[in-house]
Amino acid sequence: MSIACLEQDFLVFLKEINVYQSIIDIIEVHQITDAPLGSVDSYSSIASIISQKHLELETSKKMANFIEKLSIDEVYYQLSYVTQKSLEICIDTFNKNKLIDKDEYAKYVKLCSTSQQKWEEAKRENDFSLIAPYLEKIISYKKSIIEKFKHNYKNPYDVLLDEYEEGLSVEVIDLLFSKLKNEVVNLIKNIKKSGKIISADFLYSHVPAEKQHELAKKILCNMGFDFLRGRLNKSEHPMTGGIFDDVVVTTKYKENDMISGITGVIHEGGHGLYEQNISSLFKDTPLGILNGRCALHESQSLFWEYLTAPNIKFWSNYYSQIQKMYKPSLDKISLEQFHKAIYRLNINPIRLDSDPLSYILHIIIRYEIEKDLFNNKISVSDLPNVWRQKMKEYLGVDIQNDQEGILQDVHWFAGLFGYFPCYIVGYAYAAQFYSIVKKDLPDFDEILSKGNLQEIQQWLKSKIHHYGSSKAPLEILKTVTKEKPNSQYLIDYLYTQYNKIYSLSSN
Amino acid sequence: MSIACLEQDFLVFLKEINVYQSIIDIIEVHQITDAPLGSVDSYSSIASIISQKHLELETSKKMANFIEKLSIDEVYYQLSYVTQKSLEICIDTFNKNKLIDKDEYAKYVKLCSTSQQKWEEAKRENDFSLIAPYLEKIISYKKSIIEKFKHNYKNPYDVLLDEYEEGLSVEVIDLLFSKLKNEVVNLIKNIKKSGKIISADFLYSHVPAEKQHELAKKILCNMGFDFLRGRLNKSEHPMTGGIFDDVVVTTKYKENDMISGITGVIHEGGHGLYEQNISSLFKDTPLGILNGRCALHESQSLFWEYLTAPNIKFWSNYYSQIQKMYKPSLDKISLEQFHKAIYRLNINPIRLDSDPLSYILHIIIRYEIEKDLFNNKISVSDLPNVWRQKMKEYLGVDIQNDQEGILQDVHWFAGLFGYFPCYIVGYAYAAQFYSIVKKDLPDFDEILSKGNLQEIQQWLKSKIHHYGSSKAPLEILKTVTKEKPNSQYLIDYLYTQYNKIYSLSSN
Repeated sequence: MSIACLEQDFLVFLKEINVYQSIIDIIEVHQITDAPLGSVDSYSSIASIISQKHLELETSKKMANFIEKLSIDEVYYQLSYVTQKSLEICIDTFNKNKLIDKDEYAKYVKLCSTSQQKWEEAKRENDFSLIAPYLEKIISYKKSIIEKFKHNYKNPYDVLLDEYEEGLSVEVIDLLFSKLKNEVVNLIKNIKKSGKIISADFLYSHVPAEKQHELAKKILCNMGFDFLRGRLNKSEHPMTGGIFDDVVVTTKYKENDMISGITGVIHEGGHGLYEQNISSLFKDTPLGILNGRCALHESQSLFWEYLTAPNIKFWSNYYSQIQKMYKPSLDKISLEQFHKAIYRLNINPIRLDSDPLSYILHIIIRYEIEKDLFNNKISVSDLPNVWRQKMKEYLGVDIQNDQEGILQDVHWFAGLFGYFPCYIVGYAYAAQFYSIVKKDLPDFDEILSKGNLQEIQQWLKSKIHHYGSSKAPLEILKTVTKEKPNSQYLIDYLYTQYNKIYSLSSN
Repeated sequence: MSIACLEQDFLVFLKEINVYQSIIDIIEVHQITDAPLGSVDSYSSIASIISQKHLELETSKKMANFIEKLSIDEVYYQLSYVTQKSLEICIDTFNKNKLIDKDEYAKYVKLCSTSQQKWEEAKRENDFSLIAPYLEKIISYKKSIIEKFKHNYKNPYDVLLDEYEEGLSVEVIDLLFSKLKNEVVNLIKNIKKSGKIISADFLYSHVPAEKQHELAKKILCNMGFDFLRGRLNKSEHPMTGGIFDDVVVTTKYKENDMISGITGVIHEGGHGLYEQNISSLFKDTPLGILNGRCALHESQSLFWEYLTAPNIKFWSNYYSQIQKMYKPSLDKISLEQFHKAIYRLNINPIRLDSDPLSYILHIIIRYEIEKDLFNNKISVSDLPNVWRQKMKEYLGVDIQNDQEGILQDVHWFAGLFGYFPCYIVGYAYAAQFYSIVKKDLPDFDEILSKGNLQEIQQWLKSKIHHYGSSKAPLEILKTVTKEKPNSQYLIDYLYTQYNKIYSLSSN
């Protein structure tokens, strides 16, 4: 067979694999937007059968055969860039998955599914002991995976981190988080010490969901979201999903808390733009799927939600419309008051109800716990107390019960260890990108006040999005910022921003 | 291997096949409700790859092997009823599909996809010649299929009819339609002759879509639709789709024509109830999928839309709510006036905009054309004129152009030949069922005025729905009505109904 034919066959095979990935994504979106309660089992069952097929193809003899033939030097160097890069990802996936025992994995998937149901009960009953045995089993499975791969990593926990963000490690994160943690703790102390209270009652007036949806669509459109290849839906929790040509961004509109739904759209919109702006050359290949770059993905959502939107100029463009939507409640509230209210410090025991500043500590707490768990420094039974201690120490919060403590998030009980730190690693990356974009687009503030957000989006597309999975996250960071991960940009940003909001100094 | 194990393996295999069917159904629903324009090709491509996989499984060596082993008498008689009946369907599907050339079929699927796009252009340009060559090719493929199977049928066209409704044939339909056609033509003449005009302007006042949606949900709920295993969505055209535990009914709300959206929901609701009330024992088997019973399926939607809802008692239950929704427009309109307006004769060149009476002739025209096409009595080039002649003869309508003539429906240009007659065969079946339910539930009218529609639904479930595909359509008709297909019940119903609306006689 000629090399051209072999390459063609390989690309057809990749398309087939991609179809299974698309189906998993379609089912997820279809289920999350409005599926009736009685359909949970059916969708889980379909998704699990298709996931298995997907895994089978990725680790099939056919794949092994392609890898063998295409990797030969005289073949490899005649392949197109897309095929070469795709092949690299396929080899990586193949090597990782071939070490996984399929039966053990299937059992583990079932365990996670049961555990998620048990978690709901434990949370409802406020009883950690109900879920602890399941968590033990999940962690023990994760440790068995770590055993298989740890020889490639410095820290055992790195095995899990690397799954969500290629190249991320305890070493990198410790470097990022250690100074950041102290600075955020200090900043919060300073804000508290200032004694300044920002009133925000007016934010919680009634705004009909329909009107919120209109504003959300307008903002998303301004950001450059392509409604010919995507949509904005409603769901219980904001999320981004879908396929290459139908990126679905969702949010939940709360009629007495408009800002939560709108900032949800801004966040998910950032994810959606990333998905929509992958080079079309990568469609139907693994380069068109943003796996293993969760921190980089979060950097794109947080770039918008935590760095761009918090600029008062962003809101100036919509404020007269917003005043009308709130009817009389904002009539006597200035844009400045409105802006400060949204971005005031608002410490809450619940991560999802927290402000952008204290959110950082929520994540750092989770990271430290995960790191200690997989370095055998703490055990499952320690978790509720470790949680309380850290919440008290970092945020000054007294946790009343496990419902608002260790049981608040489903992640760990669904087997997600290693994802949490991606949020704040992503936030740090976003601040690094932000420092560059402000130089590249000197009229950044003017762009915001005119609502020409596509200019910013074009920058993100050309610097980050269009690469898809063809470049490693750290490589992209390096190319754009000429730096390694560095939290100083985020720290500087936070000081500037909170000094503005709380007038802590003349800065 | 023990028989029990073999049976178990077979059921697992059926479940796998079913997963592919479910995916096709999920993609259809996901696409039809709100998918962006730019995603059409992606979804078509995914659906076509999965359809191919589905077909491969249905005609696989594995299936052949199961059929061989399970069909042996001493095995067969030890199988459960569900397995026996499923096996029968699998054998039937296997035998039909093994004669189909897979490559030819793949080409045909592509042809249909291109043809549908061309049809849009032809309709827009009002130019039949643009699409005629594609239609020629589609018909020629259909004729090649007929060649393969016609030895089993009396009339060549029966091959196509049987695909959509097991056991349906030209013989059966001619018997049903010949008298029906004359009676409907007569009835319409009588109504016209009476000179009575029923005013209906008030129906076209503005009602917000949100309010229409509320009423639609209420009606669907009263009909017994289970919102724990289904949902009501919006789409460009009303449809029913989804999977066993998530039946999706859709409609389009027109703000200046509420009745069209609501009767859409009543119609699709009838389909949805059929899908939801298949015995749960049949889940994950071919018995849980209502293939090859399009006429029976239409009988369930038309039972509600064309026989139950047209009873004034049906609307009495909602009329005060409806009056409020229309604000002042219905204030001086009585329930009787409102009811007559909905069900007045309203002849239109467009099938989908027609009233329930003239609709019958729209379908009969299409049936006669299909029959003549596949009996080589007319050719593609004759179609526009044959259409005009029949519309003039049966409905007295002068067709101005092909846009409102031969080009109005996509069906033929998408390869759907044999579906159209199912609507009116189903209507005739529905009238037969209706005559029995009125006997079995003597307080039928009272049930309607109380809105206890579940009582009617329970009857339909126990007599029809729960069988799924385990009984042939004609067998169900026979069991319930003790009769063969018979259009006299429909004719009687139509006379009674239109005499009521137009007071044509004292009947």
